[in-house]
Amino acid sequence: MKIALDAMGGDFAPQAAVAGAVLAAQQLAGKAQVVLIGTEEAVRPLLQEYGPAAATLELVPSTQVIEMGEHPAKAFQQKPDSSIAVGYRLLHSGTVEAFCSAGNTGAMLVGAMFTVKAVPGVLRPAIANFVPKLDGGMGIMLDVGANADCKPEMLEQFGELGSLYAQYVLGIARPKVGLMSLGEEEGKGSAVTQAAHQLLKVNPHVHFIGNLEGRDLFNDKADVIVCDGFTGNVILKMAESMYDIMVTRQLDDEFFARVNYETIGGSPILGINDNAIIGHGVSTPRAICNMLMQGYQMAYAGIVDQIKDSFKS
Amino acid sequence: MKIALDAMGGDFAPQAAVAGAVLAAQQLAGKAQVVLIGTEEAVRPLLQEYGPAAATLELVPSTQVIEMGEHPAKAFQQKPDSSIAVGYRLLHSGTVEAFCSAGNTGAMLVGAMFTVKAVPGVLRPAIANFVPKLDGGMGIMLDVGANADCKPEMLEQFGELGSLYAQYVLGIARPKVGLMSLGEEEGKGSAVTQAAHQLLKVNPHVHFIGNLEGRDLFNDKADVIVCDGFTGNVILKMAESMYDIMVTRQLDDEFFARVNYETIGGSPILGINDNAIIGHGVSTPRAICNMLMQGYQMAYAGIVDQIKDSFKS
Repeated sequence: MKIALDAMGGDFAPQAAVAGAVLAAQQLAGKAQVVLIGTEEAVRPLLQEYGPAAATLELVPSTQVIEMGEHPAKAFQQKPDSSIAVGYRLLHSGTVEAFCSAGNTGAMLVGAMFTVKAVPGVLRPAIANFVPKLDGGMGIMLDVGANADCKPEMLEQFGELGSLYAQYVLGIARPKVGLMSLGEEEGKGSAVTQAAHQLLKVNPHVHFIGNLEGRDLFNDKADVIVCDGFTGNVILKMAESMYDIMVTRQLDDEFFARVNYETIGGSPILGINDNAIIGHGVSTPRAICNMLMQGYQMAYAGIVDQIKDSFKS
Repeated sequence: MKIALDAMGGDFAPQAAVAGAVLAAQQLAGKAQVVLIGTEEAVRPLLQEYGPAAATLELVPSTQVIEMGEHPAKAFQQKPDSSIAVGYRLLHSGTVEAFCSAGNTGAMLVGAMFTVKAVPGVLRPAIANFVPKLDGGMGIMLDVGANADCKPEMLEQFGELGSLYAQYVLGIARPKVGLMSLGEEEGKGSAVTQAAHQLLKVNPHVHFIGNLEGRDLFNDKADVIVCDGFTGNVILKMAESMYDIMVTRQLDDEFFARVNYETIGGSPILGINDNAIIGHGVSTPRAICNMLMQGYQMAYAGIVDQIKDSFKS
């Protein structure tokens, strides 16, 4: 099995990307091979520096780079030999089983939609993220930014997608699905979440436990947190910033350390025909390594096939 | 000047309410009198217990109580002699200059809309809350729960209301107004926030600094954080829960202590014709005291007159 990494993606690329790939290669030895995608002149010298530790890494050359500030759709079209475009072609052709990048988030989404495409039956793919639970487990939250405005049916599907991920990748037998709202009661929420509540309540594919509130993010009330991409993005960035403030203020804590994006690695795009993961722009080697591990776990679990099966009407 | 407190409101009423009133009476001595509203049999014995410390407290008797779980609109109508209904009548008649309650939030909102009513020109009053800033200051965020679904024009007005509060009550000369979104760029956001961005940009009454992200809650980017009541409620409850987790995990920190609702006291309803503040259900005496102090500050600043003037077309 091959897992691809955009060696040019992220604020500290290609150094952090290659360093993360070297770490992941050790952990994945005998299970999967890490494929780097990047320009020969930037990546090859780094591989030589690492010597034997980089021996199993494969380099697929690309000649262009989509920068962080570029317009996603335009850049993706105008740079067909960018590391992101090449990565998606390798993914779509089946050469690699997962593609990870800490580069331009928008371009990663555009590439997913144009190259890999949504699973038939999925209205809108979503970006998922993970929240550590106080009881030691891990929950999944989606959408965290792909869809600012959602219809109730989209939220319902996010519940299904998250439930499948929780079950097959996180190994949670009967994932509890909750809907983020502003009150526990069924009648509380926006017009959209109230309608989504009714859809989720009768959906036989999910174990819906009702509404959640902002305070339920880290407790064990739900394994899957459903929200629109606007709300999810605000939650995610707020949690990250609170963790950052704690670090600045030298508050060291085991639980909050798990809120750190580095532990989590990356955000999978769920509901597309292959495994794609978006990493944080500031990704460190450790974050890159965990993103690659996550890509491996998604491929190993066959999550895409599970999603395809589930959405086959 | 008289500031009224619902002595029957909150999980620990009337004990916590009376204890908080006694604390506030000390701080407000010579400036304002605290008026308690509650049943004789529940409140009078507590006042006697406090002896001279409670000497300046006035008790206005009420015979009914709206419980936390009751349907707000029904309860408000069916219990005309409840402490909340009596409080709003005192407020509306000008007997008191502010009314505070840690009781049923919905009933407090209903009372505000039915008795005190919205300021002419205000589309929808909002509930505001406060966020401590890393630089030592305090920001205001609204709406945090009164309006789950907002039109762009409502968000624009929340910017104006928050700006007036920041200026006249918090004493910030030229409050920076930001719009919570999922990206800094103008084009990022939901359909509603994108439209609100355009309205705020050309609004001469606010110093609009553009979009905020979840990570900007505690930094000095904006003094006023504008959001719909759904998003604001999720943010508020999430911040509270992270503080609670820190307390449980014995992480003691000066900055995060200011996230504690007790420090903040209560959430004013802005855009109505009088000063009303809603406290947390679990309010301690300290929280009650701070809520009363906030009521005093709002009355002292004449914030309602400022809002009326500003919305006079």
